[in-house]
This record gives sequence, C-alpha cells and structure tokens, in this order.
Amino acid sequence: MTAAGAEARELPIGIFDSGIGGLTVLSAVHRRLKREHCLYLGDTARLPYGTKSRGTIVRYALQAAEKLVERRIKLLVVACNTATAAALPELQKAFAPLPVIGVVEPGARAACAVVSGKKRGGNILILGTESTVNCRAYDKAIHALRPDASVRGVACTLFVPMAEEGWLTGPIAEITAARYLAPVMGEEAGDDRFRPDCIVLGCTHFPPLAGAVASVAGPEPVIIDSAETTAEAVEEELTRRDLLRQPDGSRDTTPSGRLRFLTTDAPERFARVGGIFLNTPLAPANVELVSL
Amino acid sequence: MTAAGAEARELPIGIFDSGIGGLTVLSAVHRRLKREHCLYLGDTARLPYGTKSRGTIVRYALQAAEKLVERRIKLLVVACNTATAAALPELQKAFAPLPVIGVVEPGARAACAVVSGKKRGGNILILGTESTVNCRAYDKAIHALRPDASVRGVACTLFVPMAEEGWLTGPIAEITAARYLAPVMGEEAGDDRFRPDCIVLGCTHFPPLAGAVASVAGPEPVIIDSAETTAEAVEEELTRRDLLRQPDGSRDTTPSGRLRFLTTDAPERFARVGGIFLNTPLAPANVELVSL
Repeated sequence: MTAAGAEARELPIGIFDSGIGGLTVLSAVHRRLKREHCLYLGDTARLPYGTKSRGTIVRYALQAAEKLVERRIKLLVVACNTATAAALPELQKAFAPLPVIGVVEPGARAACAVVSGKKRGGNILILGTESTVNCRAYDKAIHALRPDASVRGVACTLFVPMAEEGWLTGPIAEITAARYLAPVMGEEAGDDRFRPDCIVLGCTHFPPLAGAVASVAGPEPVIIDSAETTAEAVEEELTRRDLLRQPDGSRDTTPSGRLRFLTTDAPERFARVGGIFLNTPLAPANVELVSL
Repeated sequence: MTAAGAEARELPIGIFDSGIGGLTVLSAVHRRLKREHCLYLGDTARLPYGTKSRGTIVRYALQAAEKLVERRIKLLVVACNTATAAALPELQKAFAPLPVIGVVEPGARAACAVVSGKKRGGNILILGTESTVNCRAYDKAIHALRPDASVRGVACTLFVPMAEEGWLTGPIAEITAARYLAPVMGEEAGDDRFRPDCIVLGCTHFPPLAGAVASVAGPEPVIIDSAETTAEAVEEELTRRDLLRQPDGSRDTTPSGRLRFLTTDAPERFARVGGIFLNTPLAPANVELVSL
C-alpha cells in the first residue's frame, strides 16, 4: 500500500442531499461501514429540490458536490433521488475520477430483486418528488435490468414537508398517503387499477413515512427504500478501489468513523429535525453552517 | 405635473414574494387599482423562505427587490410575511427613496380594527411560518397600535406546501388545521386555552386555506388576511406621492394596467399553481424566467 493510498483511505465518504432526508442514507452507510468517516452536506437553504426545474437542480447539485470535494472526500454519495435523477451523469463527469454513487440505481436493483421470482414482469410503483417522477429515472433504471417490468410513478409532494415536520404517523400521514395512492391503487382507478408487487420509496425523505404507506397499500407490496442497497453499493465500490478504511484484519483496531455535518442554513433546525431521521439526537455543535 | 412625474406614474408597482402566495396581494391591488401596471416576482427557486434563518431571508429579499428595481418600479410591495418580518427595514434603507410597503403592518392594523370595540385588549391569534412567528413581528406591530392586546402565534409550516399542492379543502386541510390549532385553542390547552377574537392569516399562502381554519376555529373569530389592507396602504402611499396612474378625472380614459410575472424557476408550474391563487387562469407565456 502506498502512502498516498493510506492517506486516501482516511478521507471521509461525502454524502449530500437537498436537506435532511439523506440522513437515512448516511445512517445505513454508517451501520454497514462503522469505521468510515462521513461528511454530510444538506442544502437546506434551497430545499426542496423536487419541485424545481432540471437545470436548476443540476446547478445546485454541482455546487453542493464542489463544497464536499473542496473538503476532500474519497467517494461521493448523491443521497437525494431528485438530484440523482436529474444530475448523476453531470456529477460523474465533473468530478471524475472520484466515484459518484446515486440512489436511483440501487433502489431499482432492490425493486427488481423483489420481482425476480415472478414468471414475467412484475408491477413496481415508484413514490417520489414531482421532478423524480416526471423525469422517469426509475423507469429507465428498472427497464435496463428487467425490460418487461411494469412501472408506475406517483409524485407525493407533501411527504417531504410532512417528514420535515415530524408528522410521520397518525391520521394526517395516512389520509395523505391514501389520497396520493387512490388514483393508482384505489377503486377510482377502475380498469386501470395497479396492483404493485413492490413500492419504492423514491425520495430519501419518505422512509419515516413507510408505515403510513403500508397502512394504505396493505400487506401485499414489499416496501423498499434505497438506503440499504446504496450502502451496499458504497461498500462494493470502496472495496473494488481498495479504499476501505478497515481492510480485512484491521477491523478490531481501527477506531469508529467520525460523522460531520454541513448545512447551508439554520443549523439548529438541521440538528433538531435531523435527529428524527438519524433516530438519535444530533448536537447542534456538530453542524457547521456553510455557503454555496 | 412635470414630465418626470408623468413618466413615474406610468411605472409598474413591483410586488415580490418567495413564491406564488403573494399573488393574493397582487389580486387585491389589481382589484382596487385597476389602472395600475404590476410587475410580480416569485422567487420559486428558493422557496420556502419561512423555514430559513433571518440572515438568509434578508439576503434573498434584497436580491429579489434589486431585480424589480432594475426593471424600474414606482413602489415596492413585499407580499411575503416572512420577508416583511425579517427584512422590511433593510429593504427600505437599501432602496430609499423608493416607497416599500410590507404586509405585516397592514395585517396588524386590520386585526386591531376588529378588537377596537373591546373595552380592553382583545385576543389575536397569528398563523404564520416558523420564521414569522419566531421573530414576533406581528406582536410588535399590534402592540404599537394596541399595547394591551393579547397576541399568540402558531407556526403552520405545512400550510405552505398544502396550498401549493392545491389541497385547500377536505379532510387533510381540516385535520392539519385542527392539529396546529389544538395546543392553543383546543381542550388540551387547559387553563392556557386561548379564545381569539380574530385570527390573522400571517402568510400570503394561507388565504386559500381560510375555510379549513374556520371549520376548526368556529364562527366566533374574525379571519383576516392582509391582502386587502395592504392594497389600501398601497393606494394611500401612491396618492400621497401623487404617483397614481389614474389621478381623479382620468379614470374613464386610462386603459387597464398590465400584469407581468417573473419567476426564478419552473414558469409552467408557476402559471399552473398561480392560477389557483389568482382565481383566474395564468398563461405560461406571461411568465418570464429570471435568475437572481
């Protein structure tokens, strides 16, 4: 191992999202790769991305990634479905040879694994932001793996602020989920009624609302969030490039990784709401305010 | 009248908001001052302002105002409670001698008019964004007019995306309103229960949700939105400065004013959702994309 290689292994994994939803991905990465340092950026000053145009999302994503690259990272995770769907190729091109991993392909892969037992096709429902659903990024990623799958998308715009408000269970979350799913899965869909084998939570803000979605969708469809499969993809990529901080054999002596947070606005709010997503309190002192 | 004065009268009234909510103010101004041209800017790329820090809101408000001033206007209306509460003095200072009118003082004035019949005080409930409620701008404006009024504020964060989604009536709007009002007006407030004489819709996104608020608050409290009183303040200021386009006597010959729209993102979405707030369809061709 060269000195440069040893130094690169010590660099953090960079993770960015429009806000705090990407913390569900950070959480999965940290559970899987305990020894890795992580540097998270939430662009809360310009949140939400999901109702913005593609050009604006690409511009914002490049600026957010640039900030993490400035601080030195060994791999970039785009922990935002909207930014992945709109800007992944641009990010990969702009920061090559830095590996850049999005959340859409891992989510699509997990969905295809669920329907792989089916003789043919399989029905996959994508819940996402307006932008993610409109650009059909999941449809393309799923059809690349399983051309005969039937894919439908629903924009669940209100899920984002609802998750940020911490309204994750109870009647408002359930009625909202019911209203979004009704035109696709409900009786009002008539002959066009869609019976999904799996439902992809195609926005990193949605996992805390999985219970509300399940209460409407019933026990049948498997509900998928891409956080776990994204963490898997991160591990594969770091292994392939020999960039893991804990190569085999050193697991017991390498100390646990540090988690650091950058936000473009209101660090106290980030810490408060971030705790909901991380499922553990987040001290405001660990959150640094940055400008993009 | 000088030639310069005549030219100034022909300039539009500039109106800006973080998004489309300020269209309720534009609508009131246009109803009251039919002959005036209006130039509206919605900073949709950075919406919402209400969960951002004061420093960020001031910076965004100055940039938005600058764009309207560049295009030449004769008066600026800050049709956003959050921006008014956080940045009105800064805007007035930066663009003097241009008259700059906010929505908080007119809203406070309307609330004080409602409770003016009371022997003492009066109970006023402010519904606003997190930022507007936290900075207590309404409390200050109301107490300046009526020092013994009792003022309470509730941050109704979800009302903004709910209005933007067009979910204005029905169970979700009502349950959401009930959840926000319960800790203040509901039985769970116990001895601290507040019985408002009037409720101020302290965010320009909230007027379309007035029905949902009324269904929870009951028939007693008067519900106020500051759009009408703001339009009144605009007329007073233009009259005082002799800047009305239709000075007395020329009402019948001055043609109706033009309405023009600028937005920082997604003009089609602006046109589509804007129609809900204007209560009349808005052609995408009338909406120009600008960058701040």
